[in-house]
Amino acid sequence: MSEQAVTAQSEDFSRWYNEIVYRADLAAPSPVRGCIIIKPYGYEVWEGIKAGLDRRIKETGHQNAYFPLFIPESYIKREAEHVEGFSPELAVVTHAGGRELEEPLVVRPTSETVIGEAFSDWIQSYRDLPLLINQWANVVRWELRTRPFLRTAEFLWQEGHTAHASHDEAEEETLQMLDVYADCAVNDAAIPVIKGEKSRMERFAGAMRTYTIEAMMRDKRALQCGTSHNLGQNFAKAFDIRYLTEANTQEFCWTTSWGLTTRMVGAVVMTHGDDKGLRLPPKLAPYQVVIVPIYKRDAQRVAVMEAVERLREALTESGIRVHVDRREGQSPGFKFNDWEMRGVPVRAEIGPKDVENNNVVLARRDVLGRQGKQFVSQDGVVDAARDLLADIQRALLDDAQAFRDAHIQDASSYDELRAVVEAGDWARSWWAGSDADEQAVKDKTGATIRCFPFEQPGGRGECVKTGKAAEKVALFAKAY
Amino acid sequence: MSEQAVTAQSEDFSRWYNEIVYRADLAAPSPVRGCIIIKPYGYEVWEGIKAGLDRRIKETGHQNAYFPLFIPESYIKREAEHVEGFSPELAVVTHAGGRELEEPLVVRPTSETVIGEAFSDWIQSYRDLPLLINQWANVVRWELRTRPFLRTAEFLWQEGHTAHASHDEAEEETLQMLDVYADCAVNDAAIPVIKGEKSRMERFAGAMRTYTIEAMMRDKRALQCGTSHNLGQNFAKAFDIRYLTEANTQEFCWTTSWGLTTRMVGAVVMTHGDDKGLRLPPKLAPYQVVIVPIYKRDAQRVAVMEAVERLREALTESGIRVHVDRREGQSPGFKFNDWEMRGVPVRAEIGPKDVENNNVVLARRDVLGRQGKQFVSQDGVVDAARDLLADIQRALLDDAQAFRDAHIQDASSYDELRAVVEAGDWARSWWAGSDADEQAVKDKTGATIRCFPFEQPGGRGECVKTGKAAEKVALFAKAY
Repeated sequence: MSEQAVTAQSEDFSRWYNEIVYRADLAAPSPVRGCIIIKPYGYEVWEGIKAGLDRRIKETGHQNAYFPLFIPESYIKREAEHVEGFSPELAVVTHAGGRELEEPLVVRPTSETVIGEAFSDWIQSYRDLPLLINQWANVVRWELRTRPFLRTAEFLWQEGHTAHASHDEAEEETLQMLDVYADCAVNDAAIPVIKGEKSRMERFAGAMRTYTIEAMMRDKRALQCGTSHNLGQNFAKAFDIRYLTEANTQEFCWTTSWGLTTRMVGAVVMTHGDDKGLRLPPKLAPYQVVIVPIYKRDAQRVAVMEAVERLREALTESGIRVHVDRREGQSPGFKFNDWEMRGVPVRAEIGPKDVENNNVVLARRDVLGRQGKQFVSQDGVVDAARDLLADIQRALLDDAQAFRDAHIQDASSYDELRAVVEAGDWARSWWAGSDADEQAVKDKTGATIRCFPFEQPGGRGECVKTGKAAEKVALFAKAY
Repeated sequence: MSEQAVTAQSEDFSRWYNEIVYRADLAAPSPVRGCIIIKPYGYEVWEGIKAGLDRRIKETGHQNAYFPLFIPESYIKREAEHVEGFSPELAVVTHAGGRELEEPLVVRPTSETVIGEAFSDWIQSYRDLPLLINQWANVVRWELRTRPFLRTAEFLWQEGHTAHASHDEAEEETLQMLDVYADCAVNDAAIPVIKGEKSRMERFAGAMRTYTIEAMMRDKRALQCGTSHNLGQNFAKAFDIRYLTEANTQEFCWTTSWGLTTRMVGAVVMTHGDDKGLRLPPKLAPYQVVIVPIYKRDAQRVAVMEAVERLREALTESGIRVHVDRREGQSPGFKFNDWEMRGVPVRAEIGPKDVENNNVVLARRDVLGRQGKQFVSQDGVVDAARDLLADIQRALLDDAQAFRDAHIQDASSYDELRAVVEAGDWARSWWAGSDADEQAVKDKTGATIRCFPFEQPGGRGECVKTGKAAEKVALFAKAY
């Protein structure tokens, strides 16, 4: 499987990505256009992301529910701006149970409309607020150009939908969930994301404000990793979500929605991967430690496998996810390469000499070669592995952050902005342009406003495009 | 919400069921025919079932993966018997991305075919076997008559799919997963299921053998709670799933599949519910303990709520799921009824006197009235609640088992069988009939063979329909 070297990132990043996704066994192609099969090794990464996010969603007071896959076509059409955003991407069921349906059913591209309708039923008075619902589900958007995990016709996600009594409370919720996403990205996936607000043009269809976490991939392209929308009263008005106030008046609710998808698996690959393959952050790695037994003769085998089994048990009992590579007929060298390609954070090697000396070699995936190797006493392997995994988790984050910071440039003129973007970096520039100005930058440079980052220099500057006084800097980058 | 009494089970069981499902807030009707919205209270019961089952699936060596929602129509048609079983129930996407598709896409009614195709790619040699895959997903079957949780057009489930090198290994797997299902049903859901084999007529389309766990609901109807299929080489031949043996020959694999669905939520309702409403087994209850504060004057309120908060913290820290009913303007009596209807296993009441005496009243849902109440010192509440929850879990199982055993009757003649079934009970009878005989019994009595239970009396008997020598007894019952 990994006998051939992986394409270098510098040679062809996109090819590198596809190779890694399939060769590391994260996914397999599927017979349906634009869809992938998420294989166990990839699905476990998603399960890790999901578990951490689900815990945080519940800790912040939300409850999970499940809404139907199908949406009556008439629902979708109720929110004009929303339908415009989605209609070219819809998959439609026209036949069911052997006959044509009276009203076609849309396969949900998101559940805003069906949940909006339910909220309108469920919410009567201020006592029912806030209503804090989350759903884990599959959704379908018939995209023209697809890439495994990053953009697929069907994908998995969670979508949060909440209703509140005031604008401020909805805004607070929207920002809280952005923080939750950032916390998952930074602390579980080791992806140093930038929090910010989207421009009008990049907003979710129908939203009042859209917030985003943006990450820099190893090819320096931006990847939007999660978004949180303050929907104002737009959806509440379209779906008649009203409540009786304490003062006995009828008011429209203020709603939010926020989503994070299997795209995060792609983000992990493209943030940490190198020319050898994947590098998985320990918190999400299906196997945190892989044990490769080394022996030549059968007599050695018994002693080595005994030690291996002891180590496996000790590590497993301490809660570390371990895999023993028992494959016969493959050399240790082949196995080393294979697990490097598949991004296992720590490799443990045990040979006959190690058995004699009560040693084990631990090798870091993030520091290749001698530098990343250490001899550890077998009795101390649990502590050593635990420390090493924590180190690697931190190192991957630091590494990604250093890479990112080295590739964001301040650009104070349009020429500079163009030069920065052309070099592949992100430009940080003062901005007070119109939608048309933003479109012009996009047409000219291929870069879009990723966000107005929350972290602002302060003061005012001169808009890089219009020269007008600007109150905020924006980040410009080419994006996935 | 629960001001009106619930319909008595004896009056109209089906109406009782629907009332409980909606009034206990397990589900809400949806705008799509035959689909429900699973509300948080119902979804948490499902999450409990899912967590216990997922753990067992992984402990037995299976890995989760995710396959596409859509299946090309041509795939479905590849296994003739299989398509016959499903074709009238299919929902079909004919349009996507604004145009008509060249090949319609079927929304998966089960993933046998797409997983079969994938297995055919992934399996090369005996080294790749066994392949043990599970998927958590939504599926769609356009059923004519639907009922919340029991039979809905869309439902949630897990489907396991495995491939093996021999018939015996596949058979062992099929039986192992039936044991896993029974373990979940008995130990988590407190549902005493009967394990057995389905008759030819009731087999899964394309299977060689289908095993089932069958439960008796409170109206004495049978509910199939989970099935495990030994598919023989049928699917392997249809999808060309072959492997290279150690002896270097090509052989077809032996495959299995097994599924358990959100129907289990309905099984919990109908196994344990009574005329007051739901009774949830503690292991699956979203709230295991509900605390109802009791006070009249504001001065009392402060002291009571202080004690309530202390109890809540102590219980939560010990891992018990607690809810405090803080609703203003509702009497304690209203709240008692409401939580009884919603099936919370233990209610804790605290009033001003309890605060004075450092007491709390714990009331069991499964033993109503004085008998189920006890005064407990506030300092001992964690231990008392834990013991009580374990007791209730056991009591619900015992209760359901006693009910079931009281309603299974041995019937040694066809007349007896008809009388037993007519009385609503299950008949256990020797059986050696043909498919036509089985159909005749069904037409005449409305009862089907639920299974040939694994637990057999031994020896031989006379077939209840044909008089032929029979080696097995079958269970006959009306079923959902």
